[in-house]
Amino acid sequence: MDVDAVAFDVFGTLTDWRSGVAAELARVGARTGLQADWPAVADAWRRRYRPILDRVVGGGMPWQPLDELHRLMLDDLVTEYGLDALGDAEREELVRAWHRLRAWPDAAPGLELLHGSPLVTATLSNGGLGAVTRLTKQAGLRFDCILSAELARSYKPDPQVYLMAARLLGVEPRRLLMAACHPDDLEAAAAAGLRTAFIPRPLEWGPDSTAAAAPAGVDLVADDVPALARALTRTK
Amino acid sequence: MDVDAVAFDVFGTLTDWRSGVAAELARVGARTGLQADWPAVADAWRRRYRPILDRVVGGGMPWQPLDELHRLMLDDLVTEYGLDALGDAEREELVRAWHRLRAWPDAAPGLELLHGSPLVTATLSNGGLGAVTRLTKQAGLRFDCILSAELARSYKPDPQVYLMAARLLGVEPRRLLMAACHPDDLEAAAAAGLRTAFIPRPLEWGPDSTAAAAPAGVDLVADDVPALARALTRTK
Repeated sequence: MDVDAVAFDVFGTLTDWRSGVAAELARVGARTGLQADWPAVADAWRRRYRPILDRVVGGGMPWQPLDELHRLMLDDLVTEYGLDALGDAEREELVRAWHRLRAWPDAAPGLELLHGSPLVTATLSNGGLGAVTRLTKQAGLRFDCILSAELARSYKPDPQVYLMAARLLGVEPRRLLMAACHPDDLEAAAAAGLRTAFIPRPLEWGPDSTAAAAPAGVDLVADDVPALARALTRTK
Repeated sequence: MDVDAVAFDVFGTLTDWRSGVAAELARVGARTGLQADWPAVADAWRRRYRPILDRVVGGGMPWQPLDELHRLMLDDLVTEYGLDALGDAEREELVRAWHRLRAWPDAAPGLELLHGSPLVTATLSNGGLGAVTRLTKQAGLRFDCILSAELARSYKPDPQVYLMAARLLGVEPRRLLMAACHPDDLEAAAAAGLRTAFIPRPLEWGPDSTAAAAPAGVDLVADDVPALARALTRTK
């Protein structure tokens, strides 16, 4: 596949949001005297993600930074799970859990392989630009460029987000490969004219989950980031 | 000095635009059968830079990407220096000379030192985001984040460019340090509320030039990027 740049989804594709967020919930919860099934709370938080982004993309809600949306979702969870002991400071602390997630073990070595190639690597995340910058730095994920849906004041899967990434990188959409573990992200990228690579992440929703099926029409399926790097650099 | 992030000017502060552009002019010129004092042509190109950016920032010209402005400046130079043998393809090739400059030898090791610290490093360049991404990758300059004045659809020294950088990085302006070899860049950054570091580059305009004097009120003067990194990480 002949492309000039690769854009990566971050939450789920490169980082294990579930363990990270559940651990932070458990830590802050314990300090506040709360007990709960914290991985289930993390899952419930994440399940509120796509519907609220869809409302923003659909115009039903004004654009606002992901941190603020994460806070609104958390406020709802507090009511649902009876976590009212979490005060304002604790909730802000928990929102920042999404800024310091651990990477899947293959992500850093795979990105180093790509960095050593002529391909330009970028994030293309719904996380804010500053948050993704800190997250990738702390997790040791090397990118040539950090891009965020914030730069289009929208969220994936809005086609404008994918087209903004191509425009800012100075490449045609068909020369930009979107890599993600989420079929909806890849389907939207393909509809915007990008090429797509699916990286299954069977552990995204925990040890009992399974990976999503590869979306129809995906250009490439790779088991992990080093496999993606090898597939792309073989053809250069 | 207590800051959270450091933003670097690129043309001049981290890279030797004069040697790189003069070499490309000489290479393309020779192919076209032209002879000229190529370093002088490179200097003349660069001298047209600030006036045209001032026109854009002042509203006298619509914003357009730096590549297009570089092309306009080059077209003027062609007339001034009788370089009409340079056709459209050669001029486009020369515009891209600004995308592949060599770094000053201290820049890469200094940026690695900063990358290893808790400080977030970013470019803050008038070069386009894609161009700066490729330039820093090729030159081996490691940044946590690439920022360009393009994201504010303006150019330094417009205060909006510096404030955009702070906003996107998620830091207050006074927690962001602007590092540059150009006093006007630092004076504008300081006026926007940023902290400033001056790195003299006596060779910017060639072996017979001297460094600019440090601007009044600068927060820090460092001989090179490693010295800046040591000064900043000592105080963390």
